[in-house]
Amino acid sequence: MFSAELKSDTLKGLVNIISTLIDEVKFTITPAGMTLKAVDAAHVAMIEMEVREKAFESYSAEDSEIGLDLDKVKGVLKLASSGDIIRMEQDESHGRLIFKVGNITRRMNLVDTSSMSDPKVPQLSLTAHISVPVEELQKGIRAAESISDHITLRAGPDYFELSCEGDTDSVSLRLDRESSLLIDTDSEVCSMFPLDYFSNIVKAVPTGTMINIELDNDYPVKLVFDLADGNVKVNYLLAPRIESE
Amino acid sequence: MFSAELKSDTLKGLVNIISTLIDEVKFTITPAGMTLKAVDAAHVAMIEMEVREKAFESYSAEDSEIGLDLDKVKGVLKLASSGDIIRMEQDESHGRLIFKVGNITRRMNLVDTSSMSDPKVPQLSLTAHISVPVEELQKGIRAAESISDHITLRAGPDYFELSCEGDTDSVSLRLDRESSLLIDTDSEVCSMFPLDYFSNIVKAVPTGTMINIELDNDYPVKLVFDLADGNVKVNYLLAPRIESE
Amino acid sequence: MFSAELKSDTLKGLVNIISTLIDEVKFTITPAGMTLKAVDAAHVAMIEMEVREKAFESYSAEDSEIGLDLDKVKGVLKLASSGDIIRMEQDESHGRLIFKVGNITRRMNLVDTSSMSDPKVPQLSLTAHISVPVEELQKGIRAAESISDHITLRAGPDYFELSCEGDTDSVSLRLDRESSLLIDTDSEVCSMFPLDYFSNIVKAVPTGTMINIELDNDYPVKLVFDLADGNVKVNYLLAPRIESE
Repeated sequence: MFSAELKSDTLKGLVNIISTLIDEVKFTITPAGMTLKAVDAAHVAMIEMEVREKAFESYSAEDSEIGLDLDKVKGVLKLASSGDIIRMEQDESHGRLIFKVGNITRRMNLVDTSSMSDPKVPQLSLTAHISVPVEELQKGIRAAESISDHITLRAGPDYFELSCEGDTDSVSLRLDRESSLLIDTDSEVCSMFPLDYFSNIVKAVPTGTMINIELDNDYPVKLVFDLADGNVKVNYLLAPRIESE
Repeated sequence: MFSAELKSDTLKGLVNIISTLIDEVKFTITPAGMTLKAVDAAHVAMIEMEVREKAFESYSAEDSEIGLDLDKVKGVLKLASSGDIIRMEQDESHGRLIFKVGNITRRMNLVDTSSMSDPKVPQLSLTAHISVPVEELQKGIRAAESISDHITLRAGPDYFELSCEGDTDSVSLRLDRESSLLIDTDSEVCSMFPLDYFSNIVKAVPTGTMINIELDNDYPVKLVFDLADGNVKVNYLLAPRIESE
Repeated sequence: MFSAELKSDTLKGLVNIISTLIDEVKFTITPAGMTLKAVDAAHVAMIEMEVREKAFESYSAEDSEIGLDLDKVKGVLKLASSGDIIRMEQDESHGRLIFKVGNITRRMNLVDTSSMSDPKVPQLSLTAHISVPVEELQKGIRAAESISDHITLRAGPDYFELSCEGDTDSVSLRLDRESSLLIDTDSEVCSMFPLDYFSNIVKAVPTGTMINIELDNDYPVKLVFDLADGNVKVNYLLAPRIESE
C-alpha cells in the first residue's frame, strides 16, 4: 500500500532529472521515502536519488517497488500548475497508480519491475571538490555547444574551468575562488566528458541550485545536489571520455 | 451594399470558431446582422452562428451573401492589434471585400457562393442540460489527449464527467454540482465523441465563456455559447461515435 | 593590433544588418573605426557600413583587415545578455580574434580576406527623399507577405505608399505627410522590389529607427539609417525588379 501527496514542482524536478537517463524507472519504496538507482542504456551515466518522506506533503507506505513510465508522468505534470498538489495512490488489485490533480483522476498502468535490477554504484574517492551555482555550468554549456561534442572540466587550487577545444576555435569559462565558488584541491585535475550527457543533466537542474562537483584525472565526475529544500538527494556519475593516443 | 466596422478581437473570435470546421464560408447578410450555417467536409459537425448588428461598431447592409476565404481573413487579423477596429466594405463592381486596418487597405477577392447551400440543422431535444466554464472542458481535453482518440461525456443529476479510456490507462475530469456548474437532468446520459473535433471547438472558445451543453445517450452533443457580450450566438452540433459491438 | 570593447546590443545590431546579405565579411580597420562594403551573392543588394570609434566603449587599432564568420559571432552574442560588454582582441600570432564576455573566453579563427575585394558602390542621385519610422515599413511588409513576392514603393509630394498586387487580391499601406513622415519630391516616383530582400533588411533594423528612403522610377532604392546613437552609419542599396512587357 502506497499513497502520497507532493507538490507538482517537486515531482517535476525529480522527473526532469531522471528522464535525462531513462524513461522507465523502478522506485524502491519504504516508510522513510523513495529511492532510485538507474543507469542509462549506454552505461555512460548513473543516477542515485533519495526522496525523503519529508519531501512529500503527506506520505504513507510499506516496503514495495513501483515501476513508472516517466513520459506518462510528464503528461500528468502538464495537467498541474505550479503550486498544485498531486496525489498518488496505489491500486494494487489492478497494478495501477492513480494520480489525482484537482478534479482530474488519471489511472496509470505500472511498469513491470521484475526484470529491472539496481545498478551497482561504484564508491569513488575523487581528489577535487568544487561547489558552483548551476547557472555557471549552464552558461559554460551554452558556450561549448557550437564548438565540440566534448567538454573538459579542470580544477586547480584557485580556479575551476569548463573548456571546449574545436579544430580551429575554442571556448572556456573560468571561475576564480572569489566568484561564489568553493574549491578544495591541492593539485590540478582534469577530465573530459561527453557534452550531451553533461548538458542534459545540468540543464535539468533548477536554477538556484548549488552543485557539488567531485573531479579527478581521467576519472568519472560526480555531481551531488539537493532538490526540494534538501529533502531530495541526487548523486549523478558521468564516465569520462579518455582520448586515445 | 455592405459596410461595417468591428473590433479585431470580435472578428478573430468568429473566425477561430468557424475555421475549426471549414475554410471557405458563406455569410448571409441582412440589415439585422450576419448569419452562417456550415458543416465540415466529413459531415461530423455543424455550426450555426448569428452575428447581430449590435456586435459591430457600425453596420449598414442590405440583404446579400458574402463568400470569404477564412485563411485570408486570418491574414488581415495578423495586421491588427487587440483593440483595433477593422473596417469592411463591399466593392460590388469588382466582387471584392475591402478591409481597412489603420493605414492598411486590403482588397480581397470574394469566394463564389453559388454552389454553397446552407446545411439543414436538425432540431434536437436532448435530455441533459449542463452549463460549465470552457476552462474546465479545456482542462479535460488536455488530460484526454495522450490516452485515446475519443472522449466520453457523461452527466447525472449531481455530476458532469469527461472521461477517456485507453487500453491500459484512463483519465477522467469530474465536476460536481457545486463547482460553478448547472446540471439539469433526471437520469444518467452518456455519449462518446471524436476527441479531435471536440478539442478543436473547445480550444477555439475564448476563456471566460460559459458553455451550455445538451447531451443524451448515443446522440449528438450540442454546444451553445455567446461571444462578444451576447451579440454573437453560436450553436455547435457534434455527431457521436457509436461503438460497434 | 586591434582591441575594442562594445555593447552586446551594438554588435548584435551590426551583425543582424550585415547577415541579411552575407555570412563571411571583411572589416577594414583604422584608428577612426571599422568600415565594411559588401554585396550579396546574387548582386541584388549592397551594404556600406561605418562603425565609428565612438560606437565602442574602448577602441585601439592600427590599419588592418579582419575577416569574420558572422554565424560564429552570433554564437558569441547568444552568450551575452543585453547590456553586457563584449571585448575583442586580435591574437595575430594565431590568426584569431578573442572574444571575452564576462568569464567566458571565445577564441575564433579569422576568415581569410585575401580573396575578398570591396564592391564598387554606385553613386546615385535619386529624386524622392522620404523619412519614415521603420515600424511602418515593418507593418507594410507583414501585410504584403501573403499577397506577392514583390513590393512597390511609391511616393508623391503628399504621400508615401507600400503596395503589393496579387492575381486577385492586393494590399497597400499609405502614409500621409502628417503621419510623422518627411517627404521631399516634386513628382510621383515608383519602383518595385523583391519582397524577400526588402523584408530581411527592414526586419533587421531595430524598432525606433528612422529610415531615410531615396527613391526614383525603376531605379534602385537607397535606405540610409543610423544605429548606436548615430555612431554607426548604414547605406543599403537594393536593385529594382523591372517588369518585362
